[in-house]
Amino acid sequence: MRGKKIDELKIGDCAEFAKTVSESDVYLFAGITGDLNPAHIDQNYAEKTHFKTRIAHGMLGAGFISAVIGTRLPGPGTIYLNQTLAFLAPVNIGDTITARVMVTEILPEKKHVQLETTCVNQHGEKVLNGRAMVSPPR
Amino acid sequence: MRGKKIDELKIGDCAEFAKTVSESDVYLFAGITGDLNPAHIDQNYAEKTHFKTRIAHGMLGAGFISAVIGTRLPGPGTIYLNQTLAFLAPVNIGDTITARVMVTEILPEKKHVQLETTCVNQHGEKVLNGRAMVSPPR
Amino acid sequence: MRGKKIDELKIGDCAEFAKTVSESDVYLFAGITGDLNPAHIDQNYAEKTHFKTRIAHGMLGAGFISAVIGTRLPGPGTIYLNQTLAFLAPVNIGDTITARVMVTEILPEKKHVQLETTCVNQHGEKVLNGRAMVSPPR
Amino acid sequence: MRGKKIDELKIGDCAEFAKTVSESDVYLFAGITGDLNPAHIDQNYAEKTHFKTRIAHGMLGAGFISAVIGTRLPGPGTIYLNQTLAFLAPVNIGDTITARVMVTEILPEKKHVQLETTCVNQHGEKVLNGRAMVSPPR
Repeated sequence: MRGKKIDELKIGDCAEFAKTVSESDVYLFAGITGDLNPAHIDQNYAEKTHFKTRIAHGMLGAGFISAVIGTRLPGPGTIYLNQTLAFLAPVNIGDTITARVMVTEILPEKKHVQLETTCVNQHGEKVLNGRAMVSPPR
Repeated sequence: MRGKKIDELKIGDCAEFAKTVSESDVYLFAGITGDLNPAHIDQNYAEKTHFKTRIAHGMLGAGFISAVIGTRLPGPGTIYLNQTLAFLAPVNIGDTITARVMVTEILPEKKHVQLETTCVNQHGEKVLNGRAMVSPPR
Repeated sequence: MRGKKIDELKIGDCAEFAKTVSESDVYLFAGITGDLNPAHIDQNYAEKTHFKTRIAHGMLGAGFISAVIGTRLPGPGTIYLNQTLAFLAPVNIGDTITARVMVTEILPEKKHVQLETTCVNQHGEKVLNGRAMVSPPR
Repeated sequence: MRGKKIDELKIGDCAEFAKTVSESDVYLFAGITGDLNPAHIDQNYAEKTHFKTRIAHGMLGAGFISAVIGTRLPGPGTIYLNQTLAFLAPVNIGDTITARVMVTEILPEKKHVQLETTCVNQHGEKVLNGRAMVSPPR
């Protein structure tokens, strides 16, 4: 139950987490966060949008990235400093999203590690992309 | 059920959403995202960390920001392009978090709007800070 | 798994269901129904209201009445026709609410039954009162 | 975060909230309220009923009405006094329900406002109808 320390990490290290996004994931996420945007919970409305159907919250994908960082790479004990997120494509209910995290830079003096963070769907299409800075467990 | 169009927005426009973070919010967020980091769900472990108790997921605050953007400013029909997030302080179970969104820049040629996005706790302390770029409804 | 038919019911028949209202009950109810009124989910706001703390949704008590009608009296197979609800006192998180249903009138020609429906808290105080008309299973 | 005061309301004012009812909405509502009527959670049983499939709890629609009253019209600070509900047609999982609230009477001496409250499905069919009396924020 301890993540990797900075000297146990090297550039190129990778980890991932995948989940098929269910309707209940989207609905619970809406209820917890208060994001009741009709694009997520109103099929009637959503059919008239550009996306043609209800889509998942972009931040749900960000949650999957947080899952990889907090449980796998670096894992428990990591302090999450910052994250950038570009929402590249919609996630539909039923899509299988794989969140991938890769070590891209190690800053030993600051004890920080930079991570490339990506979510891809079952077609290999990037739906979310960004970078995280974290402080691994000491 | 339509958010504000770009010409209905002006710099300085603000909106917010507040919620007292419950244990069930944290547990459901953990279950939905897969972020089962013991810092969030294992009180025994958490008491031995720097934070001394279970803390909420940083991304939960990001979800509250998404709620403001998706339901209030600009609101339904907005396309979320990107978001930066700096996690500044931990959120404890029982904290009341206010997510605030303010229009900071309007880019009429790109039809994009930049937002300052902040979460503060009940003591007025910033726990999350960042910027979003969105495309308001047309 | 069949409720009581009209000829198995008599005036004065009673049934009840009791539950201690948890914070997660209130938060899930908020998320499912979309009723994110700050009186229910924002402790900071709620402390400045007349009620001094977050209160449960009045409709949660109505849900407990529906539980008695749908599972006990008359039970499965009952068609719920209408309900009146007077919200008499607030329900706090942690209160134990007992929903009581009593047969007050039997209308054999219409095959309808009238029920008195009440919710009381752990102090015996009525928090909700009303009447239901139902059509028992045939 | 304050709803409309009585002198900010006029007869005919309207607001609504729409949601596609998911299986998870029905299941969580069942779990929270204790309304485990097999008509809502037992597909095998439900197929043999008049409705041929699992239906949502009538009180879920009442919850959507509460959402409109508590967050939009009149909104935060409103005291919910009473509500009548007529359950007119079943709501199936997957139906999109729009809860509509309209001001029908203003009683300035009592500081009460009467509202017409309706839920319609995606076909425009009324599934729930009733009236609420509320005391708007002061």
